[in-house]
Amino acid sequence: MSKPTPLSGFPEWLPRQRMVEQRVLDRLRHTFELYGFAPIETRAVEPLDQLLRKGETDKEIYLLRRLQAEADEPDSNLGLHFDLTVPFARYVLENAGKLVFPFRRYQIQKVWRGERPQEGRFREFYQADIDIVNRDELPFHYDVEIALVIADALSGLPIPPIRIHVSNRKIAEGFYRGLGLTDVTTVLRIVDKTDKIGPARVQEQLVEFAGATEKQADLCLELAQISGEDFADRVLALGVRHELLDEGLQELTQVVEATAAHAPGLLIADLKIARGLDYYTGTVYETTLLGHEQLGSICSGGRYENLASTESERYPGVGISVGVSRLLARLFNQGLIDASRQVPTCVLVALPSEEVRRECDRIAAVLRRRGIPTEVSPTAAKYGKQIRYADRRGIPFVLFPGEADEHEIKDIRSGAQTPIDINTWEPSEEDRFPRIVTSQG
Amino acid sequence: MSKPTPLSGFPEWLPRQRMVEQRVLDRLRHTFELYGFAPIETRAVEPLDQLLRKGETDKEIYLLRRLQAEADEPDSNLGLHFDLTVPFARYVLENAGKLVFPFRRYQIQKVWRGERPQEGRFREFYQADIDIVNRDELPFHYDVEIALVIADALSGLPIPPIRIHVSNRKIAEGFYRGLGLTDVTTVLRIVDKTDKIGPARVQEQLVEFAGATEKQADLCLELAQISGEDFADRVLALGVRHELLDEGLQELTQVVEATAAHAPGLLIADLKIARGLDYYTGTVYETTLLGHEQLGSICSGGRYENLASTESERYPGVGISVGVSRLLARLFNQGLIDASRQVPTCVLVALPSEEVRRECDRIAAVLRRRGIPTEVSPTAAKYGKQIRYADRRGIPFVLFPGEADEHEIKDIRSGAQTPIDINTWEPSEEDRFPRIVTSQG
Repeated sequence: MSKPTPLSGFPEWLPRQRMVEQRVLDRLRHTFELYGFAPIETRAVEPLDQLLRKGETDKEIYLLRRLQAEADEPDSNLGLHFDLTVPFARYVLENAGKLVFPFRRYQIQKVWRGERPQEGRFREFYQADIDIVNRDELPFHYDVEIALVIADALSGLPIPPIRIHVSNRKIAEGFYRGLGLTDVTTVLRIVDKTDKIGPARVQEQLVEFAGATEKQADLCLELAQISGEDFADRVLALGVRHELLDEGLQELTQVVEATAAHAPGLLIADLKIARGLDYYTGTVYETTLLGHEQLGSICSGGRYENLASTESERYPGVGISVGVSRLLARLFNQGLIDASRQVPTCVLVALPSEEVRRECDRIAAVLRRRGIPTEVSPTAAKYGKQIRYADRRGIPFVLFPGEADEHEIKDIRSGAQTPIDINTWEPSEEDRFPRIVTSQG
Repeated sequence: MSKPTPLSGFPEWLPRQRMVEQRVLDRLRHTFELYGFAPIETRAVEPLDQLLRKGETDKEIYLLRRLQAEADEPDSNLGLHFDLTVPFARYVLENAGKLVFPFRRYQIQKVWRGERPQEGRFREFYQADIDIVNRDELPFHYDVEIALVIADALSGLPIPPIRIHVSNRKIAEGFYRGLGLTDVTTVLRIVDKTDKIGPARVQEQLVEFAGATEKQADLCLELAQISGEDFADRVLALGVRHELLDEGLQELTQVVEATAAHAPGLLIADLKIARGLDYYTGTVYETTLLGHEQLGSICSGGRYENLASTESERYPGVGISVGVSRLLARLFNQGLIDASRQVPTCVLVALPSEEVRRECDRIAAVLRRRGIPTEVSPTAAKYGKQIRYADRRGIPFVLFPGEADEHEIKDIRSGAQTPIDINTWEPSEEDRFPRIVTSQG
């Protein structure tokens, strides 16, 4: 065969990058578990009607077909999931009798989007999600908790500083209704395009398609520009009143105040956050990486009242999703994050001759039993060549076996070589496993 | 929507089972890293010609098609990978310039098989693979090392005892050639059916399709029945001689002797192991779970000389793959393995009233910063009800907040309640995180 080439949209990392990715996923998992979130994984596929049931026809879906399908076999009607929220809602309904509610889960898996090949967007990527759902009603304090968890999870990562932007769908909806605009969905959809088409065209479209006067359109635009600590006063200063607006302002205030106490400066109210036309009904979260704002939101979510429901049951929820692959691709491409070496190995046992390989294996086994990642040299080449083997991989130590357990170890960075007892020698905690190194220090 | 139902062949676990699966995968990963294997993940999809290039037309493959494909858009020609070895070979060729050889990697991912829906077989499952490849030639000592690694990896798992069965393709091939049978592939294929169709029919087919005499067919069957320590003597006693046979016997002896020294009783020579008609060319491994032999091999692999090659480059390799989902499904179904609780939470902070939720969040934050998984109660219900919340999930401790940091903690299993300082209190290591519990004790 000829040399294969990468597939656009399906990123693959080198081992040292995969080590970074693993540590980032481990860190997220650890934080989620500290908050009591239990893990699940869902299958990669869902029936197509599940994937399409929220009318999200803009989701690009990959359908599956068996290569060896028989002529009369019906279509599998299965598609790869495009997010983890829709499969989670299905899982909750399917397993409701076996779960305990409120149910807190995290889920870290790849998702797929059947994007047009030429667009150069990711077609396979990792998401790390947390959600809390309950039967019938979910108390509002969970909207606050999700913000606290994600603040801890992201600030524990070796990434540039972040800022969480929060709004509440009830604010916009209450405001539009208070203004007398009844086609809330259309208004939201148009206002959400402000960054793309600019305020002038948004104003025109609000007048043309949403039945707004110029004054009403102005106020809608002004609302979306409000952010920061005094957001509630500034909204009220626009002079619009509605019960739903009050509820939204009060909820958003709670999220902002609780997070300010827990992690000052990390989260701001920002009323332009709308999360498209998704299933969200209250709080909505987006997150920017400071200095990388053009990357868009690296972590988004919100409250959904109706995603997981049957005719007889209802499981409202709130959750958030970290776009791990997109975040890491950016940091890798800009050289901002790396692993301290390219293999897990901490010690290379040098091989004096092929005849003593079993003896060297036993030395390695002693170190491994003590939790020190160890390899034996691939060949009994000259020691200089064996040291180069370690050096090319970033392995910090080479052990030279001696007679009667009198071994020596060389730190190949400093060149220092000392006798050791393999039953007690320890590398520094810095050297034992590969570490993440960032260009921020 | 109506209540969803499971999809046959796509297993999903409850949270407590997923915790067990995570710990099993963590344990495998840790062992692989102790041996210096570096992690990679490959994309879920490969071009169809890659998936089919070893002529393995019996592999059941899922093809992808974009739901929103345009009429004139060519087929994606992408399929989901059915194992991790074929994608790994492709990854090595694609990234050869950026990797260091010999290249040792592990890879833990789901794979998919487009099996007929009615067969009830897994269509999505986890595999955990290790492989070592080198440019041009790979020394034989790696065939020994793979056996040592997998012996450590599997014996470190909370599963019933295992036995690794090893053979070497060169033995059968050399033996058949020494006998004068030249259509080695046909002989192998027929002998490999012994368990299915019985020795009498194998004998008939060897005579009919492989041009064997009855005597030759008898000897082929006798060879496949040899296993255990004195295998080499018993093979030679059959009176057949061939250079390739000698090489195979000598290689197999090395694997058996080295593993016997490292982990006595774990590995046996077993000449009936053939690994179907796969890409293996030398050592082949299979693994049975003692007491669950009818489950088949839970961990298989071998040496392959020609899987990763282009016109100008060749990367021989040796590796092995653990069938994690199949193994766990068995243990779950038989009630042999479980988690000690169904959530990560170790401490539930009871909530005296909704007004003091922020204060209870702060108590929880102190415990979490000290690495203790902690939740705050969902409601300020009566304490009896809050204790039941913990009990239903297996959360061992409930903390009752007091005035001026005078808190008490109750072990709800013993009922013992004591005052604690949240800055110093520690649960036992047994209680801090959920553990795996096995019915073997």
